[in-house]
Amino acid sequence: MSDIDFEQLTGYAKQFTGLGPEQEALLAELSPLIQPRLAGITDSFYEVLQGIPKTQPFLDGRVDSLKQTHLKWMEQVFSGPWDAGYAQAMYHVGDVHVKVELPVEFMAGAMTLVGVRLNEALGELLKDDPARLTQACTAVNAVLGFTLMVMQQSYESSRLAEELERFLKITGMSRTLFDNLASAYIK
Amino acid sequence: MSDIDFEQLTGYAKQFTGLGPEQEALLAELSPLIQPRLAGITDSFYEVLQGIPKTQPFLDGRVDSLKQTHLKWMEQVFSGPWDAGYAQAMYHVGDVHVKVELPVEFMAGAMTLVGVRLNEALGELLKDDPARLTQACTAVNAVLGFTLMVMQQSYESSRLAEELERFLKITGMSRTLFDNLASAYIK
Repeated sequence: MSDIDFEQLTGYAKQFTGLGPEQEALLAELSPLIQPRLAGITDSFYEVLQGIPKTQPFLDGRVDSLKQTHLKWMEQVFSGPWDAGYAQAMYHVGDVHVKVELPVEFMAGAMTLVGVRLNEALGELLKDDPARLTQACTAVNAVLGFTLMVMQQSYESSRLAEELERFLKITGMSRTLFDNLASAYIK
Repeated sequence: MSDIDFEQLTGYAKQFTGLGPEQEALLAELSPLIQPRLAGITDSFYEVLQGIPKTQPFLDGRVDSLKQTHLKWMEQVFSGPWDAGYAQAMYHVGDVHVKVELPVEFMAGAMTLVGVRLNEALGELLKDDPARLTQACTAVNAVLGFTLMVMQQSYESSRLAEELERFLKITGMSRTLFDNLASAYIK
C-alpha cells in the first residue's frame, strides 16, 4: 500500500467523477442540513442489506458496530476534506473488504443504495429550490463515485495479490521461485 | 458464462439498488423526454474521458464507434426491458472490458460521470416539478447502479480467470496439473 501515490489517485478519481471545488463547497454547505437525516439513512441502508440473503454472513452479530462506522463515514462524505488523506482511508476500506471476502459487486450496490437514500432526503430538504436540488444530487453522485473508484482500485490489487497467494499454496511453489520465473518471463 | 443464472442475478442486483416496477415505469416515461439529450451527453462523456491520460490507450482511433455503442446503451437504459436479457448483455460488456484490460475503477468512474450528466439534464427538463425530479434522479441512480453491479460481477470472474492463465504461463504449468493440485488441495 505504501507505493500508492494518493495525491495522484485523488486527482485522477476527481477528474473522472467531476468532484471539484464547486461540488465540495456545496457538500460542506449541505452538511448541517443533511446531518440529522444520516442516522435514519444508515438504519434504512442496513434494513435493505438484511433483506438480501447473500449479505447475511457479513452482517450477523455485527450490524450495530457497522452502523456506527457507516454513520461516521457518511458525516465525512459531507464534511470533507476530500483529499489524499480521505483517499488513503477509503483505499484501506477497500482492502478490508477483500480480507472479509466481500463480493466486489457489493460495493457498487451499496454505494447505489446510499446514493438513492441521499437523493430522496435531498429531494425533501430542497423541494423549493430545484436548481440547488440538482446541484446537490450531482455533488453527492460525484463524491460517492469518487469514493467507490478509490475503494475498487484497492480492491482489485488486494484481490489479485490474494489470488496469487492461493495459487502458490495450491502448487506448493515458493514466492521466490515464482518471482524468479516471473522476471524471466517478462524479459 | 453459461452457468450464470441471469434471472437470479437480476433479482439480486435489483434488490440491492432498489430498481423496482415504479422506477422502471418512470424510466420508460422519461425516455421520449430525455432521448434528444442523449447524443449530447455521450459527446460530453467522451470529451471528459479524452482529458484523462490513463484512458487514452482505450480510446485512440475508436471514439466514433464507442460513441455509437454508448448511445445505443443509454437509449436502452431508459427504454428497458431491465430483465435477465439486459443483465446477460451487461455481463458480457463486463467481460469485454476485461479482455481489453480496462482497469476496474474505470467502470465505477464512467458510470458516475454518466449519472452526473443525466442528473444535470433531468434538472433542466423537470425544473418545475421537484418531486418528479427527485424520483427521476433516484430511478436513474438505481438503473445505473444495477448495470454496474452486473458488469462488475462478470468483471471479477473474468479477471480472476485471466490471472490464472497468467500464472500458468509464467510457471509453465499445465492447466491439468494445476487442476489436479487444486482438487488435492481443497480435499
